[in-house]
Amino acid sequence: MKEEKSKYEIWKQKTHIIIYGVNTPAGRIFDLVILFLIMLSIFIVMMESVAEVDKKYHDLLLIAEWIITVIFTIEYILRIVTIKKPWSYIFSFYGIIDLIAILPMYLSYFFTNTHVLATIRSLRLLRVFRILKLMRFIGEASQLRDALKASRTKIAVFLYTVLIVSVVIGSLMFIIEEGEGSGFTSIPRSIYWTIVTLTTVGYGDIAPQTELGQFIAVLIMILGYGIIAVPTGIVTVEYAKSQRKKADEVTDPGQEAKECIGCNTKNFNAEANYCYNCGAPLPPAINNAQNANRSDQ
Amino acid sequence: MKEEKSKYEIWKQKTHIIIYGVNTPAGRIFDLVILFLIMLSIFIVMMESVAEVDKKYHDLLLIAEWIITVIFTIEYILRIVTIKKPWSYIFSFYGIIDLIAILPMYLSYFFTNTHVLATIRSLRLLRVFRILKLMRFIGEASQLRDALKASRTKIAVFLYTVLIVSVVIGSLMFIIEEGEGSGFTSIPRSIYWTIVTLTTVGYGDIAPQTELGQFIAVLIMILGYGIIAVPTGIVTVEYAKSQRKKADEVTDPGQEAKECIGCNTKNFNAEANYCYNCGAPLPPAINNAQNANRSDQ
Amino acid sequence: MKEEKSKYEIWKQKTHIIIYGVNTPAGRIFDLVILFLIMLSIFIVMMESVAEVDKKYHDLLLIAEWIITVIFTIEYILRIVTIKKPWSYIFSFYGIIDLIAILPMYLSYFFTNTHVLATIRSLRLLRVFRILKLMRFIGEASQLRDALKASRTKIAVFLYTVLIVSVVIGSLMFIIEEGEGSGFTSIPRSIYWTIVTLTTVGYGDIAPQTELGQFIAVLIMILGYGIIAVPTGIVTVEYAKSQRKKADEVTDPGQEAKECIGCNTKNFNAEANYCYNCGAPLPPAINNAQNANRSDQ
Amino acid sequence: MKEEKSKYEIWKQKTHIIIYGVNTPAGRIFDLVILFLIMLSIFIVMMESVAEVDKKYHDLLLIAEWIITVIFTIEYILRIVTIKKPWSYIFSFYGIIDLIAILPMYLSYFFTNTHVLATIRSLRLLRVFRILKLMRFIGEASQLRDALKASRTKIAVFLYTVLIVSVVIGSLMFIIEEGEGSGFTSIPRSIYWTIVTLTTVGYGDIAPQTELGQFIAVLIMILGYGIIAVPTGIVTVEYAKSQRKKADEVTDPGQEAKECIGCNTKNFNAEANYCYNCGAPLPPAINNAQNANRSDQ
Repeated sequence: MKEEKSKYEIWKQKTHIIIYGVNTPAGRIFDLVILFLIMLSIFIVMMESVAEVDKKYHDLLLIAEWIITVIFTIEYILRIVTIKKPWSYIFSFYGIIDLIAILPMYLSYFFTNTHVLATIRSLRLLRVFRILKLMRFIGEASQLRDALKASRTKIAVFLYTVLIVSVVIGSLMFIIEEGEGSGFTSIPRSIYWTIVTLTTVGYGDIAPQTELGQFIAVLIMILGYGIIAVPTGIVTVEYAKSQRKKADEVTDPGQEAKECIGCNTKNFNAEANYCYNCGAPLPPAINNAQNANRSDQ
Repeated sequence: MKEEKSKYEIWKQKTHIIIYGVNTPAGRIFDLVILFLIMLSIFIVMMESVAEVDKKYHDLLLIAEWIITVIFTIEYILRIVTIKKPWSYIFSFYGIIDLIAILPMYLSYFFTNTHVLATIRSLRLLRVFRILKLMRFIGEASQLRDALKASRTKIAVFLYTVLIVSVVIGSLMFIIEEGEGSGFTSIPRSIYWTIVTLTTVGYGDIAPQTELGQFIAVLIMILGYGIIAVPTGIVTVEYAKSQRKKADEVTDPGQEAKECIGCNTKNFNAEANYCYNCGAPLPPAINNAQNANRSDQ
Repeated sequence: MKEEKSKYEIWKQKTHIIIYGVNTPAGRIFDLVILFLIMLSIFIVMMESVAEVDKKYHDLLLIAEWIITVIFTIEYILRIVTIKKPWSYIFSFYGIIDLIAILPMYLSYFFTNTHVLATIRSLRLLRVFRILKLMRFIGEASQLRDALKASRTKIAVFLYTVLIVSVVIGSLMFIIEEGEGSGFTSIPRSIYWTIVTLTTVGYGDIAPQTELGQFIAVLIMILGYGIIAVPTGIVTVEYAKSQRKKADEVTDPGQEAKECIGCNTKNFNAEANYCYNCGAPLPPAINNAQNANRSDQ
Repeated sequence: MKEEKSKYEIWKQKTHIIIYGVNTPAGRIFDLVILFLIMLSIFIVMMESVAEVDKKYHDLLLIAEWIITVIFTIEYILRIVTIKKPWSYIFSFYGIIDLIAILPMYLSYFFTNTHVLATIRSLRLLRVFRILKLMRFIGEASQLRDALKASRTKIAVFLYTVLIVSVVIGSLMFIIEEGEGSGFTSIPRSIYWTIVTLTTVGYGDIAPQTELGQFIAVLIMILGYGIIAVPTGIVTVEYAKSQRKKADEVTDPGQEAKECIGCNTKNFNAEANYCYNCGAPLPPAINNAQNANRSDQ
């Protein structure tokens, strides 16, 4: 019995490495297969939503969906079985997404009521969230993320201001354009138009008809054109900072620690052994073991 | 009698702290309640403007408005009563907004003439300006505001140039597209279109039909695409400056603290050992204990 | 006779100072009056183009135009008479604009042929170029202009690339969307659409209907969204440079020249008199006469 | 016979210099002529696509096309004949473009079948790719290209994220707006709309009709307005870096020139007087004559 369990344990461990790990060839192949299946399943969901394609290839799409659902179900079970703390996975963001991706398909099998099926059909679309799992394959974004995190508060303040200004301008436009047949039928709709204009999107489904309305529209556009500079400025500066910081982390450590005993000069090159000012030998850098050995000789 | 007045004085002082202050728990709760009421009143104003919602819930919205108006009236009176210089509040920006927020509701009670009521109904919408009071809750924006203030003149010059160019291009487009049935019916309208295009909003309610008109439209777009860089560049550089300035203020102290005993000169280089003004040796930097000990030797 | 001429000469000189100068009170008032008249004349031109306004106030606008035309004619003659080299003014940019601003009005008096009058009416609109004279009143823009001048070549290269890419993509879209009734009726029109999309203007008068067309449209949008960063980046960096340069010009001169004779240290504060490293007195800054005197004592 | 061949060799060499070289006057004239012909041929292709122009000037355009095709054929043959490794040219990017530019015209001569001719007519449009040859005339873009290359990965990560977010939002909008008659007929179409909105293009051919849909649209717009800052920030910072790098390459030499006589170490601080590696005094910087004289004392 113990031996059996041990075999199971070994299998569990091996499977865990394949599913959760990325360092073994098998793990990498597993990841690529899952990546491909996710993209395929999203493609199927998309195609189903196109009426003509769904009409023609309905059965084919259904079969493909069932196959992928079964594979994802196996993956889901394996992920639960081979992990030490199953609940931490089940209630994690990706765990819930994985469940959402497979559940509606099984539900559609149990329910035959047309109305319920329509709801389940909508739920099936939620599997598109699985695409977020592709995010895991991004490894380059850390610096960008830092810059965005650093500018988060400032961008929030900016967007909050934009929102307040939009509410005020939207209400004004409603007063001006109401009853002109130009689409400003309510304040929320006017605010919607204001943001469409301020962000320079400009659908054109609602457009001011009165002279005053067009004049204010022009002011909003120029305002929007001007203030787009603000988030750009923030992100640029914060990103530049995070870049400098990264550069400093690479070159700084040895440099900071070194100081000439003779003349107190600082800011030496990382490789400096002698003070460039008075010629006295420099003490070894604290976090640079190799230099330390050299100066011991 | 004196005691009575004294009680009133104490109550006045306490109320003042609650209404105007933000440091006591009661003051903070008061602020949050007002914040919530402002957002609620704006929501009600918005809902009233949606024809269907207003039809269904007209009475409910009216009652809610009356309740909020009464609360805001009490707040308005308390603000006047508890402040030392009432007029400075009454004629301040927020004082006028607070009055605008409550006045139309009472006016609508006194007037029954339909035409006058319609005007008052419009005035009621002005209470949306109360949302600007939410601005007070932004404490993070100072740096951004500095950057915007510093680039104000340059952005004004830029927008002024954009306006002049728009007038010229708009007039040209009017000459080209007049009578083509493409919406260029007057110069102001052509200028409106030019700014819509230059700011990349692009409604599409007016669009050139002639080849020459489309060619110039393309030039305007590319121009707009190119010059959007200008305000962005300005704000980015000014914001970067204000960030550096702030960073300097944080890291400077060591430097700031160095002061020549002989001539009181400040602002020395971080590595300075002698006063650049009188040649006297400088005391060690206060926040650099290591240096201090060393120079004692 | 000589005296007469002398009087005329004095008048000519005085008038020249008023018209061309900006340093005397009279000169400044003259400039402000002209500024006001230019804006008024542009406003009149605009109003004339609005059919309803022109119908109502045609005579009033005509009289106002004649008055302004006469004033501008007097100004034009005075400018020619009081300048030493009249031709250099007549053939200068503003000289030609001034002539264009007054000529059509007189021409409309001599010609009565309806067809010719219509052409002259169009020419009258060219007086809107007078607005460019307002540019003279901008004194703050020098730095911005430098930044734009410095990035001119790079922005030209960028726009040239955008244009070539637009021609290629426009032709592709024509092949794909031709005959789909979606407005892609010719290559120039397709290129027009491509630039409308690439610059994120997006009128919507032409929009792709085929799946492939919409897919390429998405690629163009994302491309446009991405490359808008390029001119912004260029202008920002060049503007930052010009700002640094300006800052250097203010703080540098004294600094560069100073060097300690005792220890060869450089980079002193502008006001430094003694070396911060060895305490030796510093030589006076070469371009700083005041310091020089002080060290002579 | 040998002499004959030798003459041919000399002609080949001379022609090669004219066609591929840019340093001789003849080579430069050849380049300008080809440049003009490319622009002319693209203009002809464009004009042919405009139905009215093609109707009027069909024969003229056809003759012009044949003439240009013959000239380009001669150029193509000369390029192959005069180069040492013809295949490297034939299969190069520009070699294939050159072939595409001339081939359809000859094919249209051999085929008379109407259906095949229509296909060939489309192929003829591919000659517009010849415009890419104009790219060769850009010599200023190297720095910009470096900045774009350096930010390539980060922009790709950004666009990848935008794409994933667009798929998720597009699917959500499809669930919300399906069957509202607002153009959200399928998920791919919803994603198309999302990107149109996110990039602030905003055609307006599809626009949300439900309140929830408009609310999400507003969020997308503000998101798009905010994240446009990201690629801008990246390009600006990378471009600034490449500019600094270039500036360093120009100003460094003085620093570079300092080299320790004792141990050949380079890369000293500008102010270094002693070698940081072996402690030997450093020679004065070569491009600093003043320092050199002073240290001779």
